[in-house]
Amino acid sequence: MRGNIIGERFIVLSFGESHGRCVGAVVDGCPAGLALREEDVQRELDLRRPSSPLISTERREEDVVEILSGVFEGYTTGAPICMLTWNRDVKGEDYAEIRYKPRPGHADYYAHVKYEGFNDYRGGGRFSGRITAGFVMAGAVAKKLLRDVLGIRIIGYSLEIGGVRAGEFTLEDAERNRYENDVRAPTPEAAERMRKKILEARERGDSVGGMVECVAVNVPIGLGEPVFDALDADIAKAMMAIPGARGVEFGAGFAAARMTGSQHNDPLIVKGGRIVSEKNDAGGVIGGISTGMPIIVRIAFKPTSSIPLEQKTVDLRDLSEARLRIRGRHDPCIVPRAVAVVEAMMAIVLADHAIRAGFIPPVLRRGD
Amino acid sequence: MRGNIIGERFIVLSFGESHGRCVGAVVDGCPAGLALREEDVQRELDLRRPSSPLISTERREEDVVEILSGVFEGYTTGAPICMLTWNRDVKGEDYAEIRYKPRPGHADYYAHVKYEGFNDYRGGGRFSGRITAGFVMAGAVAKKLLRDVLGIRIIGYSLEIGGVRAGEFTLEDAERNRYENDVRAPTPEAAERMRKKILEARERGDSVGGMVECVAVNVPIGLGEPVFDALDADIAKAMMAIPGARGVEFGAGFAAARMTGSQHNDPLIVKGGRIVSEKNDAGGVIGGISTGMPIIVRIAFKPTSSIPLEQKTVDLRDLSEARLRIRGRHDPCIVPRAVAVVEAMMAIVLADHAIRAGFIPPVLRRGD
Amino acid sequence: MRGNIIGERFIVLSFGESHGRCVGAVVDGCPAGLALREEDVQRELDLRRPSSPLISTERREEDVVEILSGVFEGYTTGAPICMLTWNRDVKGEDYAEIRYKPRPGHADYYAHVKYEGFNDYRGGGRFSGRITAGFVMAGAVAKKLLRDVLGIRIIGYSLEIGGVRAGEFTLEDAERNRYENDVRAPTPEAAERMRKKILEARERGDSVGGMVECVAVNVPIGLGEPVFDALDADIAKAMMAIPGARGVEFGAGFAAARMTGSQHNDPLIVKGGRIVSEKNDAGGVIGGISTGMPIIVRIAFKPTSSIPLEQKTVDLRDLSEARLRIRGRHDPCIVPRAVAVVEAMMAIVLADHAIRAGFIPPVLRRGD
Amino acid sequence: MRGNIIGERFIVLSFGESHGRCVGAVVDGCPAGLALREEDVQRELDLRRPSSPLISTERREEDVVEILSGVFEGYTTGAPICMLTWNRDVKGEDYAEIRYKPRPGHADYYAHVKYEGFNDYRGGGRFSGRITAGFVMAGAVAKKLLRDVLGIRIIGYSLEIGGVRAGEFTLEDAERNRYENDVRAPTPEAAERMRKKILEARERGDSVGGMVECVAVNVPIGLGEPVFDALDADIAKAMMAIPGARGVEFGAGFAAARMTGSQHNDPLIVKGGRIVSEKNDAGGVIGGISTGMPIIVRIAFKPTSSIPLEQKTVDLRDLSEARLRIRGRHDPCIVPRAVAVVEAMMAIVLADHAIRAGFIPPVLRRGD
Repeated sequence: MRGNIIGERFIVLSFGESHGRCVGAVVDGCPAGLALREEDVQRELDLRRPSSPLISTERREEDVVEILSGVFEGYTTGAPICMLTWNRDVKGEDYAEIRYKPRPGHADYYAHVKYEGFNDYRGGGRFSGRITAGFVMAGAVAKKLLRDVLGIRIIGYSLEIGGVRAGEFTLEDAERNRYENDVRAPTPEAAERMRKKILEARERGDSVGGMVECVAVNVPIGLGEPVFDALDADIAKAMMAIPGARGVEFGAGFAAARMTGSQHNDPLIVKGGRIVSEKNDAGGVIGGISTGMPIIVRIAFKPTSSIPLEQKTVDLRDLSEARLRIRGRHDPCIVPRAVAVVEAMMAIVLADHAIRAGFIPPVLRRGD
Repeated sequence: MRGNIIGERFIVLSFGESHGRCVGAVVDGCPAGLALREEDVQRELDLRRPSSPLISTERREEDVVEILSGVFEGYTTGAPICMLTWNRDVKGEDYAEIRYKPRPGHADYYAHVKYEGFNDYRGGGRFSGRITAGFVMAGAVAKKLLRDVLGIRIIGYSLEIGGVRAGEFTLEDAERNRYENDVRAPTPEAAERMRKKILEARERGDSVGGMVECVAVNVPIGLGEPVFDALDADIAKAMMAIPGARGVEFGAGFAAARMTGSQHNDPLIVKGGRIVSEKNDAGGVIGGISTGMPIIVRIAFKPTSSIPLEQKTVDLRDLSEARLRIRGRHDPCIVPRAVAVVEAMMAIVLADHAIRAGFIPPVLRRGD
Repeated sequence: MRGNIIGERFIVLSFGESHGRCVGAVVDGCPAGLALREEDVQRELDLRRPSSPLISTERREEDVVEILSGVFEGYTTGAPICMLTWNRDVKGEDYAEIRYKPRPGHADYYAHVKYEGFNDYRGGGRFSGRITAGFVMAGAVAKKLLRDVLGIRIIGYSLEIGGVRAGEFTLEDAERNRYENDVRAPTPEAAERMRKKILEARERGDSVGGMVECVAVNVPIGLGEPVFDALDADIAKAMMAIPGARGVEFGAGFAAARMTGSQHNDPLIVKGGRIVSEKNDAGGVIGGISTGMPIIVRIAFKPTSSIPLEQKTVDLRDLSEARLRIRGRHDPCIVPRAVAVVEAMMAIVLADHAIRAGFIPPVLRRGD
Repeated sequence: MRGNIIGERFIVLSFGESHGRCVGAVVDGCPAGLALREEDVQRELDLRRPSSPLISTERREEDVVEILSGVFEGYTTGAPICMLTWNRDVKGEDYAEIRYKPRPGHADYYAHVKYEGFNDYRGGGRFSGRITAGFVMAGAVAKKLLRDVLGIRIIGYSLEIGGVRAGEFTLEDAERNRYENDVRAPTPEAAERMRKKILEARERGDSVGGMVECVAVNVPIGLGEPVFDALDADIAKAMMAIPGARGVEFGAGFAAARMTGSQHNDPLIVKGGRIVSEKNDAGGVIGGISTGMPIIVRIAFKPTSSIPLEQKTVDLRDLSEARLRIRGRHDPCIVPRAVAVVEAMMAIVLADHAIRAGFIPPVLRRGD
């Protein structure tokens, strides 16, 4: 099976199940000498947590990260960093029904076929959004590495929820506001409108989707190893591995398909003695290589599959038609929670490529 | 650097340059016992070739594939299959200017920085669309493997060009028509409208973008190795590695972001004794696993970056502002040519995952 | 850095430090459906433990394994299996001296240079033999997989210790006796003589080396993926990764260098309707492929580097000449303890290659 | 199948068959900016060639290397370097017999089973020593990289042939003499005695084995990524992948198994302001990390399996007992030819690890 490892130099292995003992990740390849404490990881993990009981109903995990290896006297050692959070608030009985009545929009049935019934189906097991807690842990290490060594900042936010798109805003707005509101919107005003959409859906027993935009600034020219390990290709893969992602685009993205070359090409100019592009329709990646301009990616997330509304499914025991009402705690929109995960995946890919392209050395100097 | 290999079990290594001696690929991991002749690869390669001098102006390469290894007495041996086509019609002088005047929208400048000027800049070198001839060779092997063993068919076509979208059509229409017209449209009618858009752009000295849709049918349930090597994640990576790709989406894709859960979820039903979904908004992949429904992916391609219109750039020798008029043979739209490449990448990923998931054995039986 | 992962399909990631919180391993790629309980792993782990206070003086870790993920209702799920044992009996103060006075024969100095002082030096950190507890955990899973699916048995034993070589014995002798005596010898008589050598060395404040032989029986023809992932090449790598290994040989091994072709070639004969070789000087691998004959490998282990005798070294603080007396608990011979580790590494490589060559499916059937 | 790729950053893919169209290799991951011409590779390839018709009878291939990609204006570009030599002197008819009468000591039978008869059996196909021509091409690139950037020299030689071991000699002797005599011995005197052994075997219709020793000097401290990608582990794997290798050892090697700790440990001293070890029983690698001392490895090669003497085998058509007399051109000792291959594999592994550990940058500066 083997598919739980991502990266070439900064490698992340994901482990754990929704209703098993823990959820975690191991990072192999983090340079030695990075100052790292559990608080650095905890902070990121907290950003993924339910921020408001009104729009998020996930079980109240405390999600306390423990670093089990790879850090010594406050610095990474170059050895694998194993991190995990213990699952505390697990109620197995909530999920007994899904063993035989696969939930539409979920992997339940397909995992059942693929693993011939051996998969841990409780709460979706490996397919639960809960698994992304491990992504965020690994991303926290990557983020700190990128920030400390290269000054790279990664800013994700909910660009659109339930069809409501954020109005005009600057990156600074987004950076300042996204974690100040419970929907991770770039402005308070957008937050208000998005929150309303989510609550409406929730009242109907339904759910809504949305879009996360993520921007990485201060990325030097030269990350990405074409032709196949193109930077945008690896980012796309990482984003699509987030549960619920249905599409990904860079810069002008799908709109580029309707532009002409003279509109879309980013003209080169000299600014402050440096060659930059006049605009950034390419979204910071051309030919699979970072251009030095902000990397801009958008990810479409589907509406939460777990909805209280009655749905049609099949009872696996006799292939009879069945009706299903999903109970339990499910966010009516996964987008707010996905923001931290998108940032984590961006950080993981950038850290990997920064090491590959020689921008981050195998050992950081003390004082760096 | 090292980034020219894709796949885990069915592995493709791309080599060659636009204006070097050849363009090719090596496949490592193709099962032994696949009936394979040069004609099988040549046929696919021909589909990538300029179909009409009116809308495609690439140099008239004959692109004759040679299989150098890994095939014996008409069957693959399990050893690496090295394939290439010799570059014949190469004129180095056409490209001297781009050494110092990087073309907007191209990797010229970024590759120059990354490789510190050592890259083969002629015709874009490794960043030329010509490199995809090697993708198509490898894809031809993957396609035949998928078809012979699993009956999988892969159908790509131009869904939209220059803002013109194909009207209603069936998959059968697309399969029958796409290689019968020079823009790879699913219907003759759409072809006519798209062709017009391309010619208009060409007359203006400009270019247009578009969208390729690709469908894979007969894919069994269970391809994909979550959480990271999710099937859609790996397809997304492969597609984004195609020069000019700016976005990728599955099933309802970005539209899913505006749907509700009750709209988007694909209800499960029993049909012909088999569990299927009533519709396929998921595009054939849920939780990173193939669902048995057709896999549907759309890729946005930007307009050709090489346009005859004068563009702004910088002269690298003195950082002075410069004007650039790109001469030479360039398609005013890369979408028609990309169709064969998209199909190839889809085949490569599916073959890799079919082997990983145990659907294709290490050796095919004679007579299979 | 990134070097803590081994395998292609059955993948093992090692984590933990000698004096950190824990030592463990994650297996990614174990097929779903393998019956696995903690006792299965504990049993193997116990075989690695100090068997006799006379010849082994390692700290009395209880080494209780915990399986944190990847197993559900007694069966593997196909998800990563994270296993660890908590370090309990850790005294950091014992090892303060080695920070500045690197121990001859140890990685202390070289790790200090490589990781620029960031490595966890306590007890050797990642370079401690203690790390192999994780190898044994992963090996336990691999062993069970090989035995349950293919009936493969792996038998390691101390062939030679301190120059004392075991006399004549059969594989059955070895299988029966090795874990019945504290030096893992194939016969009680050899055990007696080896034990004496170890005790003599211990009394002198010195240590002795030795040789482990490991045999795998019931391996089918066809494991190994030449040319580079040859079965013997991958076994050699795995064995050389065990701390203290200095050489590895297959079948006749180095003696083959002094044989003639007519002596060394294994003639093919038919026996019981099956083609086998008359003898097995090749040690079960020819051309990198398993031959169906027992795989026979021998690994040379150096004498324990940590000895009580005074040794010459350098004080890193001022590059002055220094004397070092290593205190603390160290086995005067690592060979007995290495036996379980050698078996584990053999199992890990065979499991990986059995999956790669299609002998083990992605999911085991219930009842298998 | 997929097993023809070695390395993580400096990656070598081997392709081609003994009696196919060509034998070659692709290097992915060679830094840009390395001065490289076909002559650099040809020189190494020539060292692998039959040096004397008396002791080597391989077909008289010219083995002219062609570099097909990845080099531009005399420098590597960072793109994959595809190299090959065309097979010219191929006579298929010589090998028809081995299709049904597998040669003892060869992979014939095991490959036949593994690939179910689809393998190219002519001349052993992928299992022929001829494949190593590709190894040497890739090794030539690695060698030049190591020498140009780090000043690393790699010196291999025949240490022992047919039981005749070279007498006392210095590394300088070996470096000066090995390619001056046809058996690659470190001294003319040893060459004379080894040559005699080979000729005696040849006259008897038999063959002899031997041992290659390979030393790498000027390797900095810190290559190797423990625990699994230990430098000695990766070297061991690479060496064991050479056809005919039966064992590998480092420094004192198997003799270390009979030493005491006080004998074997290399005491640390200060010499010329640098910490070095007083002797080098560890062979330049401790704890999987290079120590800065010369890396010393010995590889045992079996006697050539193809001998003119009649041998016992089985006719695959009816499982009857058969006799086989191998005709054709076969060296009575592969050791002299293996020397260049051993050096190549050493170079490939060191280049890979030098890049991994940050000693070689992704792009070399002009003038380096």
